Amino acid sequence: MEHFADRLFAKMRQAGSVLCVGLDPRFEALPAGLQEAAVKKHGRTAQAAAEAVFEFNRRILEAIAGIVAVVKVQVAFYERYGVPGMAAYERTIRHARSLELVVIGDAKRGDIASTAEVYAEAHLGPEAGDEYPGGFGADAVTVSPYLGPDTLEPFIKRARETASGLFVLVKTSNPGAGAFQDAPLSEGGVLHQAVAGAVDALGAACVGPDSGYSLVGAVVGAPWPEQLAELRELMPRAPFLIPGYGAQGGRPEDVARGFDRHGSGAVVNSSRGIILAYQKPAYARFGEENFAQAAAQAAQDATQELNEALARRR
Amino acid sequence: MEHFADRLFAKMRQAGSVLCVGLDPRFEALPAGLQEAAVKKHGRTAQAAAEAVFEFNRRILEAIAGIVAVVKVQVAFYERYGVPGMAAYERTIRHARSLELVVIGDAKRGDIASTAEVYAEAHLGPEAGDEYPGGFGADAVTVSPYLGPDTLEPFIKRARETASGLFVLVKTSNPGAGAFQDAPLSEGGVLHQAVAGAVDALGAACVGPDSGYSLVGAVVGAPWPEQLAELRELMPRAPFLIPGYGAQGGRPEDVARGFDRHGSGAVVNSSRGIILAYQKPAYARFGEENFAQAAAQAAQDATQELNEALARRR
Repeated sequence: MEHFADRLFAKMRQAGSVLCVGLDPRFEALPAGLQEAAVKKHGRTAQAAAEAVFEFNRRILEAIAGIVAVVKVQVAFYERYGVPGMAAYERTIRHARSLELVVIGDAKRGDIASTAEVYAEAHLGPEAGDEYPGGFGADAVTVSPYLGPDTLEPFIKRARETASGLFVLVKTSNPGAGAFQDAPLSEGGVLHQAVAGAVDALGAACVGPDSGYSLVGAVVGAPWPEQLAELRELMPRAPFLIPGYGAQGGRPEDVARGFDRHGSGAVVNSSRGIILAYQKPAYARFGEENFAQAAAQAAQDATQELNEALARRR
Repeated sequence: MEHFADRLFAKMRQAGSVLCVGLDPRFEALPAGLQEAAVKKHGRTAQAAAEAVFEFNRRILEAIAGIVAVVKVQVAFYERYGVPGMAAYERTIRHARSLELVVIGDAKRGDIASTAEVYAEAHLGPEAGDEYPGGFGADAVTVSPYLGPDTLEPFIKRARETASGLFVLVKTSNPGAGAFQDAPLSEGGVLHQAVAGAVDALGAACVGPDSGYSLVGAVVGAPWPEQLAELRELMPRAPFLIPGYGAQGGRPEDVARGFDRHGSGAVVNSSRGIILAYQKPAYARFGEENFAQAAAQAAQDATQELNEALARRR
């Protein structure tokens, strides 16, 4: 199977979009019609919430496939609804993959190596010939570096075996991200730069032949344009996943700094800005029942905005 | 409902044990009889693996209840088997709670604040009067600090509302834990001490009236006795969860350093050393079919060993 980064960037080129759509739906935020239909069928239960969430995702996915190449599914919003929620997570991944979308499981997992191996089996793959196949089988997963590089290796091993990828948290998009991530180190630099160094070193041995990018990527938040530019230099082979575009405040010219000079090497995530577009005045004309068409239009607009910013930069 | 730390330490005192039993079962490591029964019923499927895991846990839980007061369930081993695995996770938590055991969900979650809020709802609770109740409802959950203190606050808020707790990763038990956690900072000290400072500050406002301990705890690994002692001083109100005892190499006199002078304030986790005791020469007499009795005996022995080390220290 094709190397993760080669596949990712080829599909993005084909779609003509660097946008990733984040599927982070809270039941309470869904269109009233979807909420009511689910409650009518299952009562006020986790099952109702999970089914409404999947139905919402299904319609969004079918509307945006072809416009974008990548989706990010935030696991928290599915764990929230327990076992039925995890079934909705699994179905969402499967449906997205059937539409030829690349799926990033936003799990931010991390544990000691023997457990990281199990998390990698749970989230990446599936591997051909797996006995007792389980897990969720995304194309890539986000992971936390706090436990150290030894605990990232099992994810890399599994990613190599299954032609999937990972994105290591380097600098996150939340306002307080700097509290530890920007801590100045005695040896020079700050913590997130040390993490970036480890990401670069770990990724060196698993670069895709076509793209020149590794299967070891990095998460760098849109609100930090200076650091996007610096980290792009520190990790020249790492695909960047850039969250925090749109709702969290990153601008197109900011996120453009995380790309290479060919306008590649990164994918920009927007979640609520796309999937809840129908709630915004600019897309109100679609009406609540056409939420998926509103999302598709918002995805098209964000794609164009990003492409223009990338073109200006060249 | 009683404050988490008060409840935790009262139950531990009642059981006369500072041991926490970790339920991290891999299907391939289970007794052959359990594996075969499950495969006979469900074929070589994730469903078979998940059901065998639950049956294994059920028998262990019933054998150790009363001997220990606390169990830690490592979520990775359940996610590994997908949706059926998560059902086994939910059933394990529910069964443990029905046996009056305190359950720590070892999830190591962490995300931006708006997502951390959703993770907290998924793992802590349940809250009285919850609409669309879902989630897994452990008594406490482990969380990662990499994203910053602002992202721990939603977990604390939920823990206050549901009389549950959290354990923040400070110094983990893996061999490479120090790579980032021990990074010397320009302002003095090392990263894990800065994290400890945040844990102490965040926990100050939510201390239990009986125990004097906070609902904000810390994970500090058994292999680092010097740091256990230092961190005990830096976080005097934080309950410690000490992993890495037994299989990972920590000794009783090492972990004793994470306790206060009354022999309280910490819980020591052993996973494979207890649940797979029947595979060890010392417990071979029980035979594979009596794996749960072997685990109970191993839990009793580890309890005594720890109590002796704590007594020697006073």
